[in-house]
Amino acid sequence: MTEDTKLAKVVFQPSGRRGTFPVGTPLLDAARSLGVYVESVCGGRGICGRCQILISEGSFAKEKLTSRAENLEAATEAENRYASLRNLPADRRLSCQAKILGDLVVDVPTDTQTNRQIVRKRAEARQIDPDSAISLVSVAIPEPDMEIPRGDIDRLREALVAQTGLADLITDPVLLPSVQTVLRQGQWRVTAAIHQDRNTLPTVVALWPGEKSTVYGLAVDIGSTTIAAHLCDLQNGRTVASAGTSNPQIRFGEDLMSRVSYVQMNPSRLPDLTKAVRDAINSLIGKLTGDVGAQRSDVLDATFVGNPVMHHLFLGIDPVELGGAPFALAVSDAMILNARDLGLLVNPGARVYMLPCIAGHVGADAAAATLSEAPYSRDEITLLVDVGTNAEIVLGNKDRLLAASSPTGPAFEGAEISSGQRAAPGAIERIRIDKDTLEPRFKVIGVDEWSDEEGFTDKIDGVGVTGICGSGIIEAVAEMYLAGIVTTDGVIDGSMAERTPRIQPKGRTFSYVIAKDGVEISILQTDIRAIQLAKGALYAGVKLLQDKLGVYELDRIRLAGAFGSYIDPKYAMILGLIPDCPLEGVAGVGNAAGTGARMALVNRGYRREIEHTVRNIEKIETALEPRFQEHFVNAMALPNKTDPFPHLRAAVALPEPKELADSDPAGGERRRRRRRG
Amino acid sequence: MTEDTKLAKVVFQPSGRRGTFPVGTPLLDAARSLGVYVESVCGGRGICGRCQILISEGSFAKEKLTSRAENLEAATEAENRYASLRNLPADRRLSCQAKILGDLVVDVPTDTQTNRQIVRKRAEARQIDPDSAISLVSVAIPEPDMEIPRGDIDRLREALVAQTGLADLITDPVLLPSVQTVLRQGQWRVTAAIHQDRNTLPTVVALWPGEKSTVYGLAVDIGSTTIAAHLCDLQNGRTVASAGTSNPQIRFGEDLMSRVSYVQMNPSRLPDLTKAVRDAINSLIGKLTGDVGAQRSDVLDATFVGNPVMHHLFLGIDPVELGGAPFALAVSDAMILNARDLGLLVNPGARVYMLPCIAGHVGADAAAATLSEAPYSRDEITLLVDVGTNAEIVLGNKDRLLAASSPTGPAFEGAEISSGQRAAPGAIERIRIDKDTLEPRFKVIGVDEWSDEEGFTDKIDGVGVTGICGSGIIEAVAEMYLAGIVTTDGVIDGSMAERTPRIQPKGRTFSYVIAKDGVEISILQTDIRAIQLAKGALYAGVKLLQDKLGVYELDRIRLAGAFGSYIDPKYAMILGLIPDCPLEGVAGVGNAAGTGARMALVNRGYRREIEHTVRNIEKIETALEPRFQEHFVNAMALPNKTDPFPHLRAAVALPEPKELADSDPAGGERRRRRRRG
Repeated sequence: MTEDTKLAKVVFQPSGRRGTFPVGTPLLDAARSLGVYVESVCGGRGICGRCQILISEGSFAKEKLTSRAENLEAATEAENRYASLRNLPADRRLSCQAKILGDLVVDVPTDTQTNRQIVRKRAEARQIDPDSAISLVSVAIPEPDMEIPRGDIDRLREALVAQTGLADLITDPVLLPSVQTVLRQGQWRVTAAIHQDRNTLPTVVALWPGEKSTVYGLAVDIGSTTIAAHLCDLQNGRTVASAGTSNPQIRFGEDLMSRVSYVQMNPSRLPDLTKAVRDAINSLIGKLTGDVGAQRSDVLDATFVGNPVMHHLFLGIDPVELGGAPFALAVSDAMILNARDLGLLVNPGARVYMLPCIAGHVGADAAAATLSEAPYSRDEITLLVDVGTNAEIVLGNKDRLLAASSPTGPAFEGAEISSGQRAAPGAIERIRIDKDTLEPRFKVIGVDEWSDEEGFTDKIDGVGVTGICGSGIIEAVAEMYLAGIVTTDGVIDGSMAERTPRIQPKGRTFSYVIAKDGVEISILQTDIRAIQLAKGALYAGVKLLQDKLGVYELDRIRLAGAFGSYIDPKYAMILGLIPDCPLEGVAGVGNAAGTGARMALVNRGYRREIEHTVRNIEKIETALEPRFQEHFVNAMALPNKTDPFPHLRAAVALPEPKELADSDPAGGERRRRRRRG
Repeated sequence: MTEDTKLAKVVFQPSGRRGTFPVGTPLLDAARSLGVYVESVCGGRGICGRCQILISEGSFAKEKLTSRAENLEAATEAENRYASLRNLPADRRLSCQAKILGDLVVDVPTDTQTNRQIVRKRAEARQIDPDSAISLVSVAIPEPDMEIPRGDIDRLREALVAQTGLADLITDPVLLPSVQTVLRQGQWRVTAAIHQDRNTLPTVVALWPGEKSTVYGLAVDIGSTTIAAHLCDLQNGRTVASAGTSNPQIRFGEDLMSRVSYVQMNPSRLPDLTKAVRDAINSLIGKLTGDVGAQRSDVLDATFVGNPVMHHLFLGIDPVELGGAPFALAVSDAMILNARDLGLLVNPGARVYMLPCIAGHVGADAAAATLSEAPYSRDEITLLVDVGTNAEIVLGNKDRLLAASSPTGPAFEGAEISSGQRAAPGAIERIRIDKDTLEPRFKVIGVDEWSDEEGFTDKIDGVGVTGICGSGIIEAVAEMYLAGIVTTDGVIDGSMAERTPRIQPKGRTFSYVIAKDGVEISILQTDIRAIQLAKGALYAGVKLLQDKLGVYELDRIRLAGAFGSYIDPKYAMILGLIPDCPLEGVAGVGNAAGTGARMALVNRGYRREIEHTVRNIEKIETALEPRFQEHFVNAMALPNKTDPFPHLRAAVALPEPKELADSDPAGGERRRRRRRG
């Protein structure tokens, strides 16, 4: 740095981190040097759009600087192209493109990823008959009388008892500070919200002057990666707005177990994890109510689902017991709580219903998905799988229902995969490999055309090919298997490199190159291993439940969750991720956990239904089952070493088994896995 | 100030106020110049002992000073005398005596007044049969089982249901963060506290590892001036510790209505008044639990009583509706609340029972006093009077009970009286005037001897005669009346000045000098007026209830409250403060409100009893009654203009009526009073 180098001060909000940088530094580089998390997956080419920031303009006394929009370099060509293609808001900039020209206060919004991710966690269209825990009662109250000096809230209660017949009605003390003002504002005519549910007394929880006709409830699915929230009209049961956001706990640990370890190592930080998720939910509530022009105080009820670790962290419970056998839950039953005790910024009288957890690894999200798909009310045998970093598995019918979880790891979400990324624009989501030429064609999220179709080349410039998402990896490995590039054991056949330059040596193994314009996107041998481990664990868990149930012929398979909804059932079956089943019986069901949460929100009957069901589900702890390891090893093969998959074979021509003499990587993985356990 | 004047920095805690003072400044003067409240009633003579402070020693980086005990001048002779007589703790100093020699951090303790005031708000000895809302249940819980993975708190609940038979038992969510730790600490044997009362579901509210045999409850009487708290063993019902403190809301307004006005003028400061009283209660809880070696978490239940304004402010309710007709209470019924929602530093699962309020001016304190004296279970007609700044009056028997309040003002507490002070050492509490010589003799709180007895002169040096308290004023005026110094109309007869130098002219009126060594203590004409107004209002309220009941012959009079307990019934009757009644039927009953609060704390039967009683009490609003004014005017006279007081006349020789031709001060007061209303 010469003496002529000009320096500028940059402060990032909301973290408050600050630093001094040479003029000309790209803003994204500045953020990274300070440890400020700004997402970017396109390698700084201005095509993924995830690195958006805003400049806060003005004079910042505390920071001793004046921040101006023109202290950030004008938009580059790439940024202008992105803005025109993707509707970049006027006040947003791409931090990978823009260079620092002077002092800046930079706001890193949290909704950039959000806008991407709700693509995949939207509310499924489903009509739910309303019978919510909140009812609105409009009532006239006698004015105060010095001769009969009963309190305002007591006369209110009496009027409501007379009108509703609820003799044991009580009033929430949270109304005390406001009851007198509201009664007078309404000129002694008010609308009361009464909460009624099991294990509580009927309670007046909110009050408005005059008439009030619409109140809302909130259904939230707290995933380890994404939090999805739906705002529902509690009177008609309709979902009026949905939104999602990243789970900010990610900075304490990418997956569940790393967050449990974090708390174990840093017990004093537990409140931070709890606050992080509650803050994110409060932001979502602000967005949802804003979207429909409602107030936070219009939200009177909420349901929450999540895996046990998310469930416990949200409630402020140390999840450490969930980190090891016997995986004891602090609480499994459904619960009614006060929203205010959870720090939720909604009506202070609002209640919360926590759906029950099934077991230490099978959470309220699995319960909600079960509620949504209702296998317990069918004759057919249903397999319900919610694929996340932990797969939650429910199997059975109206006679008997079993549940288990299987530790699939994050491979299905694109993590641990060399070119993997989350499902977002720029990610390869579909792929086909020509059996003769071994050439791939693929589809990218954000572009309608396949890579070999007209128009793709023009459009891809605006998006870029940035990686491969979960469904893309499934198809890539399955297609490589169908094309003979990969053996039954999951080994890339190096001898095929003679036929195509796309198969390339990488040390002692080989890789397959899908794309190489811009970022090179390849499937490495280690990627296939990661997928084999994940799908082997999932399949072994399912197989254990089949053993318990004594049924191997399935009628229906329902794949829930973001990943489960977007994978092609055929490829999932070719890979042996799910067991054999008539292909037409397999369907993705989207965010079934969110749907179940909405059902329990707007209709109390569903609360009783899932409470009853969860009590009767048989819980299988896969870690305790001696046959798990055997099932797992067999399930490492494509589609499976022992199971015949007759329905699949009838629909798809599987290649002849091909084994390579000099390699047993599955065995190697097996050994490695055993050491981990 | 010369250039040689040395300056010292002084910081007062907990207020944090600070200033720089010349070396040699008395610490009390420094405090006053900064507006730091340090009580002192002896005029800085080192005898009242209320100005105690502590020096915090050490280096205070934030304050940039080093505070040393030797930076305060060594004890004076007066201070040493006080310390030897009154057991001044070694670390305490009298701020009126000690001069600043260097930098200081001064801690102003809140317990100095406290120790004085509990003298008069102690728990009355009364055995209360225990049947508290909290029961302790010791239980063994099955260990977690992966095959039946129910949550720890759910298994706990089931074990408790099995043991207690409480099928609808629920668990307080506040247990969630700790339940797993407690179960493991107790090796699956724990003691649970279960709360059961009306209008709630039976609830597990607290949990301890192993066996727990003693838990406590708190009974609190929130007076406008003093807060008295009792710690009771919830198992055996015994009161194990009592303590009192000033109500810190005094700085927002001396009496009830000035606090209501304060909130009306400064609505945003309502939370400050609420916080002030809750903080004071939290300090008392710390003291009480400390006194018996218990933890705050051992406190599981609490009852609170207070007049309606205190009741509402404690609950965070704006009391402004109580400031004017129709004096609407926000809430009158009894209530169960969570202690944590009130910011009380006790067990987080603790509950609170608020006793019901009777009317907008007749609070839960009157309800508690009624519970304590139980006039509703007797044949005799009882008059129960709780004399505070607002007198609360209950009259009747088992057939019919009426209640009202009367605005007596603070005169009975020594305010508005020229030499008045609260009941504390140094205050004249008893007085006799010789009818011939017109010489007084008196008794001072803190000295056993009367002023004309041997030993008084020696002992009084350590205490001083600092003022006259409520009971002293009553006796002074009554004795002046009996001695003929004061007329039936309450006028000091100036012609008597011929007979004694103690009667002295003061402008157009006269005064009577009781003591003149040190501070002069006199009864002025305006003092007698203040007493007449107060007693007239009280009597008029009682008379109105007698009119309603149609009964003028009373069997029993019970005087509750600090003042009511210490006045001599005979003098109260001579003054016409209470109606005529056989003298043996009149008794002080101490802090009856506190006793009622303790009864409701340790036995739920009393909760039902007072709830039922309050619903059936007839409430009379004195302000609405046309005869109030007439009764009030008659009651200005000593003892009364129209009522004959036969029982009193049989016991005491009252002087012949004596009226002075040229004065009608009662009429003047009447006019003034009318303007106020």
